[in-house]
Amino acid sequence: MKIEQEIAVRTEQINALLERYLPKEEGFQKTVLEAMNYSVRAGGKRLRPMLMQETFRLFQGTTEAVEAFMAAIELIHTYSLVHDDLPAMDNDEYRRGKKTTHAVYGEAMGILAGDALLNYAFETASTAFEREPDNPAIGRAFGILAAKSGVYGMVGGQAADVEAGEAGDITMTGELLDFIYRLKTGALLEASMTIGAVLAGASQKQQEVIEQIAAKVGMAFQIQDDILDVTGTQEVLGKPIGSDEKNHKVTFVTLKGIENSQNEVQRLSEEAIELLLGLGGETDFLQRLIQYLIHREK
Amino acid sequence: MKIEQEIAVRTEQINALLERYLPKEEGFQKTVLEAMNYSVRAGGKRLRPMLMQETFRLFQGTTEAVEAFMAAIELIHTYSLVHDDLPAMDNDEYRRGKKTTHAVYGEAMGILAGDALLNYAFETASTAFEREPDNPAIGRAFGILAAKSGVYGMVGGQAADVEAGEAGDITMTGELLDFIYRLKTGALLEASMTIGAVLAGASQKQQEVIEQIAAKVGMAFQIQDDILDVTGTQEVLGKPIGSDEKNHKVTFVTLKGIENSQNEVQRLSEEAIELLLGLGGETDFLQRLIQYLIHREK
Repeated sequence: MKIEQEIAVRTEQINALLERYLPKEEGFQKTVLEAMNYSVRAGGKRLRPMLMQETFRLFQGTTEAVEAFMAAIELIHTYSLVHDDLPAMDNDEYRRGKKTTHAVYGEAMGILAGDALLNYAFETASTAFEREPDNPAIGRAFGILAAKSGVYGMVGGQAADVEAGEAGDITMTGELLDFIYRLKTGALLEASMTIGAVLAGASQKQQEVIEQIAAKVGMAFQIQDDILDVTGTQEVLGKPIGSDEKNHKVTFVTLKGIENSQNEVQRLSEEAIELLLGLGGETDFLQRLIQYLIHREK
Repeated sequence: MKIEQEIAVRTEQINALLERYLPKEEGFQKTVLEAMNYSVRAGGKRLRPMLMQETFRLFQGTTEAVEAFMAAIELIHTYSLVHDDLPAMDNDEYRRGKKTTHAVYGEAMGILAGDALLNYAFETASTAFEREPDNPAIGRAFGILAAKSGVYGMVGGQAADVEAGEAGDITMTGELLDFIYRLKTGALLEASMTIGAVLAGASQKQQEVIEQIAAKVGMAFQIQDDILDVTGTQEVLGKPIGSDEKNHKVTFVTLKGIENSQNEVQRLSEEAIELLLGLGGETDFLQRLIQYLIHREK
């Protein structure tokens, strides 16, 4: 089966899992519950839970706790998009061809739906404790989830990005751009794969290797995004190209040039695959998933 | 010692505890870290951690985990204020005489500082796992924290409140107002006291009584707020009175009248104290704290 088809099958499986965790739309707070579900159902490939699950399988994990954490990481990714789209942030009315949450429910409800999703992520993850109060891996997974989502993870990257945007291009350096990519994009991917490893009982050394793989994948994924904004076509991407240049946005490509960027993606991807192969075990799908993410054409 | 003085002493102790948990203001995300700390240091009596600590003491708790949760509940309370003050929400430029977070750091940073504080609350609470991986009470406390903060707790109350405000007075009922007060104000007080009980190893029955006490205190606290908006003086309150009437805000007082409201506060306060006395133990400070909260004049 082609990797795109395999991904599509797993996306559907994860969507079914997510539906089991989404709240019922009832009670006096019905509207914010609708806004939460609308945001989650707006779609996406569910790459973060997919990476978590695959890493968990690689280490032959068995606990059901991974399902609660798969839902939690997608809820956190979703809240970050809802808040990113707000008028005071990127001010986007559409995402993937659908109205953004605040565009449908209003700005106040957009803020609260994001807050509710973030809280609900932790609430969902904490159901794992109820089932397995004596599994210390769950506490560890919780710590990783909170750390990689917060100010030393994703939010820290968003904040540095907002500030760099306000300050103008002049202040952007390779070091700062690296920081932003590593935290804004990379941190949740690191959380996804590392939590999969932790819950499956991987050794400390294996957890560290997985975190390195995820970091390389995250960086390559983001640089490929920059490349596609220059080399892609609107037809294939389904969104306008050249938007970075139009918005005077400093990217890896504008800083280093297209050839260096392509070389960097190649280097990161080879290093990630090499580390993965070093772990042994059944890595076939994970290898192809990583190759796809990094070398995708849209 | 007068209760106001005793509270002031404990507020200072809790402020010192909070300082130990606040992040360092450094790195590329320095501004959002500053905004977080600015928000926390803007003050307040720290009633939520105070109630948690007192309940913990009532059941003779010993684990240091309570300190991480005391910090976490105050971080969550703070994030909720930061987001409540945003232009799309209450649009407040000042709180307790100080500029609000978004007024100082801009709206985007206000949103992100709130997100960062909420994440950091869970990150802080999860440090308790690292120290005591085998204490199942910590997992339970985590679940309560997430549930009472989220869409079935505080955020649910905020969302219902926003929606009621947008719909206009006509839709407000006693049942809806009760829901809003119970969730928006009550839920975090319930979390505070119940987590204190859980971490101290209180029995299931004792935890339930504590939750009932906190719910009654929360409701009485909020109704007293409505009463003070009518009967207080600007001099004592330090903020304009009559603001509810001016904003056409439906409150317990506008729905039920001042005398019924005063009777309700009295009834709730007596019930809370009676439940507290039924628990036995050293309840003196907690009794006086609750009496103070409910019958305060500012």
